[in-house]
Amino acid sequence: MESVKSQSYEVHINELAKAALNQHVAQNKYSKIFLLVDENTKLHCKPLFLDMFESAIDAVLEIPSGEEHKHIHTCLQLWEQLSRLDGDRKSLLINLGGGVLTDMGGFVASTFKRGIDFINIPTTLLSMVDASIGGKTGVDLGSLKNQIGVINQPQMVLVFPEFLKTLDERQTKSGYAEMLKHGLIQDKAYWNDLTENQNFTDPACIQKSIAIKNEVVLQDPTEQGLRKILNFGHTLGHAIESYCLDNPNKRTLLHGEAIAVGMILEGYLSHELRGLSRLALDDIKKGFLAHFDRVDFNEEDIDAILQLLKYDKKNSHGNVNFVLLQAIGTAVTDIKVPEELFPKAFAYYEE
Amino acid sequence: MESVKSQSYEVHINELAKAALNQHVAQNKYSKIFLLVDENTKLHCKPLFLDMFESAIDAVLEIPSGEEHKHIHTCLQLWEQLSRLDGDRKSLLINLGGGVLTDMGGFVASTFKRGIDFINIPTTLLSMVDASIGGKTGVDLGSLKNQIGVINQPQMVLVFPEFLKTLDERQTKSGYAEMLKHGLIQDKAYWNDLTENQNFTDPACIQKSIAIKNEVVLQDPTEQGLRKILNFGHTLGHAIESYCLDNPNKRTLLHGEAIAVGMILEGYLSHELRGLSRLALDDIKKGFLAHFDRVDFNEEDIDAILQLLKYDKKNSHGNVNFVLLQAIGTAVTDIKVPEELFPKAFAYYEE
Repeated sequence: MESVKSQSYEVHINELAKAALNQHVAQNKYSKIFLLVDENTKLHCKPLFLDMFESAIDAVLEIPSGEEHKHIHTCLQLWEQLSRLDGDRKSLLINLGGGVLTDMGGFVASTFKRGIDFINIPTTLLSMVDASIGGKTGVDLGSLKNQIGVINQPQMVLVFPEFLKTLDERQTKSGYAEMLKHGLIQDKAYWNDLTENQNFTDPACIQKSIAIKNEVVLQDPTEQGLRKILNFGHTLGHAIESYCLDNPNKRTLLHGEAIAVGMILEGYLSHELRGLSRLALDDIKKGFLAHFDRVDFNEEDIDAILQLLKYDKKNSHGNVNFVLLQAIGTAVTDIKVPEELFPKAFAYYEE
Repeated sequence: MESVKSQSYEVHINELAKAALNQHVAQNKYSKIFLLVDENTKLHCKPLFLDMFESAIDAVLEIPSGEEHKHIHTCLQLWEQLSRLDGDRKSLLINLGGGVLTDMGGFVASTFKRGIDFINIPTTLLSMVDASIGGKTGVDLGSLKNQIGVINQPQMVLVFPEFLKTLDERQTKSGYAEMLKHGLIQDKAYWNDLTENQNFTDPACIQKSIAIKNEVVLQDPTEQGLRKILNFGHTLGHAIESYCLDNPNKRTLLHGEAIAVGMILEGYLSHELRGLSRLALDDIKKGFLAHFDRVDFNEEDIDAILQLLKYDKKNSHGNVNFVLLQAIGTAVTDIKVPEELFPKAFAYYEE
């Protein structure tokens, strides 16, 4: 499986990943090698990792899993541990986990002694196809996601689809939603492949998604223009995710589940505003609903979600700009949406 | 007074600084402008700053002054304030203060929403001639200095020697020690000027020091080789600074006071190991003792300081490497020092 070349590093998959890891560690005379895990990856992924890793790990650091631990206090504990364990500027941190762990581990490495090397080994489908590219690291600030962080690249990212066997189906599907997004914004043939042939955990599909995201990021590393298309489905999706998280009466949605709803809604907006065909719109809805249960939203829910959207406004000069589709595979950015279309979009989703 | 061009930004002095600041802010459409001060700069420097600043400040953030507040909890308060005040990625943070404030403000800006613009206005001589170049940002971790941080450049650094009038003489002299270091490691004529002509707060002297540090950093931005010469006097100086800080029986030394001692000691080591002439060594000692009171060290003090030095070893593969002088103006790096020379160096300092 061919590696994907990003700006300063490569994403290696399967057998190449193992070789690249061991070669890199053999060539760089690291003073210490630290492995970061959470309670899940410690149990399910660490043994597989140690089997293929040919050097010695100096210490294993463990953090509790879950977004609620993705904050600066967990970082402080990690910095203190690294310091106590004599970590220096020539140390390496290997992050073995999902997006929360690789985001946080990347931030801790990027800021410990003004930056040490790190390698990410994403263990969920979502982190393989999404967090593996772009260099975003960071933690939450209260309930605000990813407010503290830096853009900094790992030495390499290693993808072992084997790890996906340790996940439940709901977790895996959450990553699938991002893969479908990659097809929708950039590659109609890939969308067709994914929706017609269900085997999305195939390494070739994972590699294709990584390659699409990489192409977009390489063209716009600082998120000034094109890269915004990666937010398709996320504007409403994030508001829905936050609303369900904070509302005890709603089932909490995984990130992928929320943006799946977001993509159907924003697909409808695309049909209304950018000429996405009705056929394509229905294809999108069908594609997602084949894998993701429909979520019920009553009028009150919709009002609250739109309020959250307006609150978000404050963080971008007072405007909500949407990414919409002209066709499957072709996205456009910076589109303003008249408010009256939102209830219609929800109605289309529910019908 | 000519500006000093660093990698991605310039250090402007006096009248050019005012023009550059106002022009930059006029050209960049910042969504919010925040000013960071401590209780001293709020009182003594903010009025002068507001007099020359032609735009509106959206909010003034205040932190307590002093190294003991240079930690992640202060950063957390600043991130929360920026967030509450609707700071977004197009915001600007202006850091008005000494090295502690500009280091910490630079770190907060570099990590808020993965990095916003910041401008540093150093208000102490030490921060003008030292922290203004190199892009080091960060905070302490417990008693370990600058363990958490990133390398990131400000939009510009503005130097107003006028601010020095708000400092007491001891504070100003602390910066003078770094200026003398610049002469010792790179420029004999500048050393002679500084020691023969006492007017070291002259803008031309400040500019010369900034230019010397800048030249060194530009040649070695990632601290692999040449940049190490900036550590002359700091290996023993840091250990002395830490020892005096933690020992209730010793007078706490300012950074410059500690490295002044360090430079005499390491001058002696240079004489023993790298052929620095006795004449030059005595000139160095005389140069520092003309401005810095001699500190008394008994045998117990010296033992404890050397223990601290050994503790530092753990952070660099087990070796202490010194920067020494072959002559005034010519430094060499990575020199190992036999332990028996340390007591002799202290004896020379005390005699």
